[in-house]
Amino acid sequence: MVQFQPILNSLKSYEAGKPIELVVREYGIDPKDVIKLGSNENPFGCSDEVIRAVQNFAPKMSYYPDDSYLDLKEALAQKFDVTPDRIIPGNGSDQVLDFACRCVLTQGDSVLINRITFAMYRIYALQCGAKVHSTETVPHDLDAFLDLAKVVKPKILFLCTPSNPVGDALSKSEVYEFLRKLSPDTLVVIDAAYMEFGKRKDPDKFIPAKEVTDLFPNVFYTGTFSKVYGLGGMRIGYGIGNKELIDNIYKMRPPFSVTNLSALAATEALKNEDHVENYLKSNLEELRRYEKFAADESIEFIDSYANFITFFARKHGRTATTIAQSLLKKGIILRDLKSYELNAIRITIGRPEQNDRVLESLTEEFV
Amino acid sequence: MVQFQPILNSLKSYEAGKPIELVVREYGIDPKDVIKLGSNENPFGCSDEVIRAVQNFAPKMSYYPDDSYLDLKEALAQKFDVTPDRIIPGNGSDQVLDFACRCVLTQGDSVLINRITFAMYRIYALQCGAKVHSTETVPHDLDAFLDLAKVVKPKILFLCTPSNPVGDALSKSEVYEFLRKLSPDTLVVIDAAYMEFGKRKDPDKFIPAKEVTDLFPNVFYTGTFSKVYGLGGMRIGYGIGNKELIDNIYKMRPPFSVTNLSALAATEALKNEDHVENYLKSNLEELRRYEKFAADESIEFIDSYANFITFFARKHGRTATTIAQSLLKKGIILRDLKSYELNAIRITIGRPEQNDRVLESLTEEFV
Repeated sequence: MVQFQPILNSLKSYEAGKPIELVVREYGIDPKDVIKLGSNENPFGCSDEVIRAVQNFAPKMSYYPDDSYLDLKEALAQKFDVTPDRIIPGNGSDQVLDFACRCVLTQGDSVLINRITFAMYRIYALQCGAKVHSTETVPHDLDAFLDLAKVVKPKILFLCTPSNPVGDALSKSEVYEFLRKLSPDTLVVIDAAYMEFGKRKDPDKFIPAKEVTDLFPNVFYTGTFSKVYGLGGMRIGYGIGNKELIDNIYKMRPPFSVTNLSALAATEALKNEDHVENYLKSNLEELRRYEKFAADESIEFIDSYANFITFFARKHGRTATTIAQSLLKKGIILRDLKSYELNAIRITIGRPEQNDRVLESLTEEFV
Repeated sequence: MVQFQPILNSLKSYEAGKPIELVVREYGIDPKDVIKLGSNENPFGCSDEVIRAVQNFAPKMSYYPDDSYLDLKEALAQKFDVTPDRIIPGNGSDQVLDFACRCVLTQGDSVLINRITFAMYRIYALQCGAKVHSTETVPHDLDAFLDLAKVVKPKILFLCTPSNPVGDALSKSEVYEFLRKLSPDTLVVIDAAYMEFGKRKDPDKFIPAKEVTDLFPNVFYTGTFSKVYGLGGMRIGYGIGNKELIDNIYKMRPPFSVTNLSALAATEALKNEDHVENYLKSNLEELRRYEKFAADESIEFIDSYANFITFFARKHGRTATTIAQSLLKKGIILRDLKSYELNAIRITIGRPEQNDRVLESLTEEFV
């Protein structure tokens, strides 16, 4: 009988946000009545220019991608003011996070993460046989990270800022101070999937990829087209670091890891900053509505710098799971954070008319 | 300084077939004059129905895929007469090969491959810190595999049939006899990327996924949409095994590993078997032309059961590298097999009019 690696026993699968297809299948709701605000996608979708570019290229789907991904890397290089050889593309930023783990981790190595953070860091680390340590707090606490780092000497440390799934963000100055104090032997992954939203709400939260990776050669900065660029289904992200770091991470990359349509869509999306700008404007305005609602109704929440907001369920009220289930039956998909051990729901900020419906439904649940 | 895993030092990147973009960039050739027969893509592309389905779905690119990939798995389950829980989708069959390696291999484990075979088996195994052993012959020799397996006790053994890059294929009866003799502790990957072509040329070479995985629980059977289905750029493949094997391999799968457009394109492609049938018919007719050419000109080649043919360069003539370079300047992309340590070129069987041009150019090189 085939013997699997012992670490498989400790691995759990990631619990993804529910897809529209599931709600349609399970509750018999018309797909057009489903509001999907469970996975932090761009509720306006990607731009028309991106859609047209993909439609025009579709007849060439049979050709393997240009494995250098030069067009995409040049477009990203321009956005971040770095040379293309400091960029690695991935099948979602997920994939470059995985590469980073596999480049440095061997059996028994330590990894340090925040208590509440993107679930895949733990999973990728465990897949490498690493031991995962985490801080105690819900938002990031960099002092706690430093104290723990001295003890566990992590090979990798993950900072998610703005952070998924609760939305807290670190300022540039505190991150730089932290990096100066931390051992330069630790690879620090700065997962900037929601950085564009954070920068928009508070410029102090903006950590520029070039600056941080120039100053700190042990920083690997990752980003994605799944959020602000509206390409969640196309699985495209990237990592940025100094050239030596990227050369090493490249060794774990399989060929053709990004589809040709995805690379094209991302390259095209970088030409349409107006679309992004309009979304960022709407997102912040609508986020304020959720903040006001929570304040008015005394619902506990953490100040969010992303395209979602997390509401904690009341201690003596209905549980987050009950609330999420109740909304699901109405065709509204939110994220129950039970798998993160929080009695909370995470709501992606939708289009204004979607938020009307969500806030109306939440009133029934919370008030 | 960040310390990388020692195994990174021994890793080389995969040498991919040259993309059209490169020939355009380097030789200033009009893209429409480039004939790309270096990567075994379907020269007719995918079907019009697949193109239309992708174009219609493009506005929904912002949504993450349904991570269950249920529609695709049900369509594949029907094709292979297995239950959907015996299928794992991947970002190309490449990705499921990687999952398989990571599920069973730890530092120092043995892996057994054919001397000449798909280059990624070695790379994925080395990424896991495994030791790679290989047979001596160019086509597969199962007796040599058995002898070596007794000595090195491989955790994984790869059979590529029909085999890339030389095109030899194993018959079902010899594979079954081999599997009966081999230790059931060895995970045997049957990479069936080119199986549809092999079955068409000689039904004895057809190894049915259900039968082989029912009979041998240690077999993981992989397939792809990159070849006969014409979706090389969309990175979609799959693995089939018994349920326990698939459950374990699933633990190494990251969420959303296949784009929503890719899953849709593959599902749609399975509805258009006429398109596949027409391609298979043309491929075999055109393959015969290359075989006749080689026989007429006394060019050494191995009987091919795929959508390509490998010609060995003459011992005292121009090298394969010179020939490939010479054709490249004319806008014809073939694969120089130097990286496989063969003085040979691999030619994807193109459309009839493409083959006219290739054969004409090859006459100048070989005759």
